[in-house]
Amino acid sequence: MGDDCIFCKIVDGEVPSHKVYEDEKVYAFLDTNPVSKGHTLVIPKEHTDDIHDAEEMEYMWKPLVKVSDAVEEAFGAEGINIAQNNGSKAGQEVFHLHFHITPIYNGNELNITYNRSDLKEGEQVAEKLNKHL
Amino acid sequence: MGDDCIFCKIVDGEVPSHKVYEDEKVYAFLDTNPVSKGHTLVIPKEHTDDIHDAEEMEYMWKPLVKVSDAVEEAFGAEGINIAQNNGSKAGQEVFHLHFHITPIYNGNELNITYNRSDLKEGEQVAEKLNKHL
Repeated sequence: MGDDCIFCKIVDGEVPSHKVYEDEKVYAFLDTNPVSKGHTLVIPKEHTDDIHDAEEMEYMWKPLVKVSDAVEEAFGAEGINIAQNNGSKAGQEVFHLHFHITPIYNGNELNITYNRSDLKEGEQVAEKLNKHL
Repeated sequence: MGDDCIFCKIVDGEVPSHKVYEDEKVYAFLDTNPVSKGHTLVIPKEHTDDIHDAEEMEYMWKPLVKVSDAVEEAFGAEGINIAQNNGSKAGQEVFHLHFHITPIYNGNELNITYNRSDLKEGEQVAEKLNKHL
């Protein structure tokens, strides 16, 4: 971890947060700039920059599901977006692995524009990925 | 599952796909309308509508990390977005749990506009969530 990691400081209690969930390895708290009511971040307590160093962190899974359930139930959300960004070009701002759990009420909270196209060279693309798996 | 679930048919091989990864419980394949080169969907083989019925599926975690690694390495992506939508208002179109692994190359592939505001009534919001956890 870096001493200047804001999420490590939140886990340590040095920086205050509104705690939503905590277990031995996982911490969840309200986003301070929520997209909607109940917008929560779920993070591992152990500092990890992003998903690429997180292979052994399957203990994140159950808290992600539990928090998603709670966020939906507590405020009657119509849906839930789970998002996790890696790299500044992908929108990551804090370099401590975190999942956004964002409740959707009317569908206008997130405006996501995907520049989609038809799949081209699928066979070659899949083959190249297979070599890395 | 429903007999008409397109992702169940992909798992069964009834509908063709470009396979990226497969193990006993998880299947990953190229999105047919990719946002960018290598855009992959990771799904459980067992039919599950969304995250709310997935508490026992922590076996999804390692494949998510592995595919994220592969997608980045294979094509030199600058970042990775992981997204998982629940409910039609949240943008879910196929009601079989799936994670989008989207490589980001120049940062323009995804245009996400969040309507963020300052956290209000954080204490009450967290308290209400705590009751559901």
